[in-house]
Amino acid sequence: MAVTSFPTRLLLGPGPSNVSARVLEALAQPLVGHLDPAFLATLDEVQERLRRLFGTRNELTLPLSTTGSGGMEACLANLLEPGDRAVVGVAGVFGERMCEVARRIGADVTRVETEPGTALDAAAMREAIARTEPVVVAFVHAETSTGVCQPVEPIARPAREAGAFVVLDCVTSLAGLPLALDAWGVDAAYSGTQKCLSCPPGLSPASFAPRALERVAARRRPVQSWYLDVSLLAGYYGSERVYHHTAPVSMIAALAEGLRRVEEEGMAAREARHREASAALLRELEPLGFAPLVEARVRLPMLSAMRLPDWVIARGEARLRRELLERHGIEVGGGLGKLAGSIWRIGLMGENARLSSVERLVAALRRERG
Amino acid sequence: MAVTSFPTRLLLGPGPSNVSARVLEALAQPLVGHLDPAFLATLDEVQERLRRLFGTRNELTLPLSTTGSGGMEACLANLLEPGDRAVVGVAGVFGERMCEVARRIGADVTRVETEPGTALDAAAMREAIARTEPVVVAFVHAETSTGVCQPVEPIARPAREAGAFVVLDCVTSLAGLPLALDAWGVDAAYSGTQKCLSCPPGLSPASFAPRALERVAARRRPVQSWYLDVSLLAGYYGSERVYHHTAPVSMIAALAEGLRRVEEEGMAAREARHREASAALLRELEPLGFAPLVEARVRLPMLSAMRLPDWVIARGEARLRRELLERHGIEVGGGLGKLAGSIWRIGLMGENARLSSVERLVAALRRERG
Repeated sequence: MAVTSFPTRLLLGPGPSNVSARVLEALAQPLVGHLDPAFLATLDEVQERLRRLFGTRNELTLPLSTTGSGGMEACLANLLEPGDRAVVGVAGVFGERMCEVARRIGADVTRVETEPGTALDAAAMREAIARTEPVVVAFVHAETSTGVCQPVEPIARPAREAGAFVVLDCVTSLAGLPLALDAWGVDAAYSGTQKCLSCPPGLSPASFAPRALERVAARRRPVQSWYLDVSLLAGYYGSERVYHHTAPVSMIAALAEGLRRVEEEGMAAREARHREASAALLRELEPLGFAPLVEARVRLPMLSAMRLPDWVIARGEARLRRELLERHGIEVGGGLGKLAGSIWRIGLMGENARLSSVERLVAALRRERG
Repeated sequence: MAVTSFPTRLLLGPGPSNVSARVLEALAQPLVGHLDPAFLATLDEVQERLRRLFGTRNELTLPLSTTGSGGMEACLANLLEPGDRAVVGVAGVFGERMCEVARRIGADVTRVETEPGTALDAAAMREAIARTEPVVVAFVHAETSTGVCQPVEPIARPAREAGAFVVLDCVTSLAGLPLALDAWGVDAAYSGTQKCLSCPPGLSPASFAPRALERVAARRRPVQSWYLDVSLLAGYYGSERVYHHTAPVSMIAALAEGLRRVEEEGMAAREARHREASAALLRELEPLGFAPLVEARVRLPMLSAMRLPDWVIARGEARLRRELLERHGIEVGGGLGKLAGSIWRIGLMGENARLSSVERLVAALRRERG
């Protein structure tokens, strides 16, 4: 019996993005064990390349065996104990998710909210930090639900000065925008593999500063999650390579190849490619009546939130997305949360950040508009 | 730059096992989105095949986006609240891990221990259940650290009669031994993909009975883990297909193919193949001085714990394992926990449960013994 094949899709939603043939080839290598020296060499390489991409010297920089949402939980669950105060910036669904995750850990959460499509107000964050003296300040670098790029330093610096630990969501920014965790003063950060890295979903690249690990070592109670406890993960992902759980060998082999591609291109060229593609997208969509939700100053290059024109609303936006998928093989994302039904989220991430992606989407939309 | 290749290995440790070319081909398919109808059809198929393999009609039967250890945490974190009593059977490292996971959730854990290499004493479990009236009774079906197959019903039945929820670790048994969650009265079970399913590591097939979901709905506090909360997961893995996190599309495509292979062979034939291979292994290793740790009555067919002969101890067991790997391309597992240094764990799982695996290992050992 033959393997069932998925249809061919151009993935221009909020992730996954398309994966190159080279990464798929790495993914499909015959397996080795998770303690095999050949695998551990690949893991070392992944960890070193992730350090460069995150802009950090943090030793505990690793691909967590979970998705980006699990990475969020890992960062918050390690740094927060029940009763601890946290200030969370909410500029969309993923900031909201951070609040919910922190609350379930038992934290006392102060939300600092902003309108969807805008960046967090650094002054409001500073005020909440000064008022509540939190253990953790958490926010999202690239808010995947709105397409906003949050300036990190204006929040991270005062948070660190107030003695807080800074947690940053880099799910959509890693490998699309340059990151500088150490320079920014970020203590824990997480990402996903299926966005600008253009690897399959299922791993969460993450990084924990020595300061964060000291905090974990000084906890009054152990981390609620055995699986995500960084003090245990450090046994395998550090130099000892002691068994903790079975690492996802194939996914990590694919990630290694994805990271090689990023470094071959160079982060500056990669960022420029993302910026050129999104500029072309906005230029080409404007005559079709789409308008960006986010002002240029804080607009993400890899994910564009577009207000929908009347003809799309009249047609039914969900129906048109389904038609784009079925007739043209193109996936775009709908709005999430408050923005459901009123925006599309168009991703030009990693492999897909190319003019050819823009051209295919625009041609399909022109045909559908008729 | 070419993709780095792993060396070719025959994986006869405690997992991962070797993955067939067909499953690797499914893994390496170009991606579709996690909400694409084509992917959701594959996910439906995976869920239905998992139900048959687990022996259950539980609607919430799904591949959790985590490894087997994360599946353990999912089952315990959903069913236990801080202060709840749990009885955990400890017949090796993985039973011990269940205690640690349950304790971190805040449960009051009663351990019922047995000597490594023996099965749990059902009478001792019954006594602990009667004495502590636990919310959860948890134990391991196939203890990967010792090679013991635990009879399920003599523990599950009295546990259910006492009103407890039964959690079963099926990491190493799924797809190697027939499972019957519903007939046994198991409320929550989890497995891994890298053992008898012969898929890459990184997913945890799991199943939750309606009774378990009712318990979760009636909790006093939300599940500590947002990522693993089955009441949220049911939104995506149930009929609504609402976004929760990005499902690992490629890994699930590979799992679909692995499950097709299992059902093409048929579970009875597959179990017989595992039993024949392990019988041959024991027969062939005996003249080399290896002796089974576990008595025949409760011995697993897919994982054999073998006491080491003097010549292996004299040579250095870890050194010989390294030499098997480097010179012969064969991985076998060392002992874990109390059994480190005194046993090997030899897996004949899924694709590797064949006489040819036994022959290659035995030939290599004969050459090494000289």
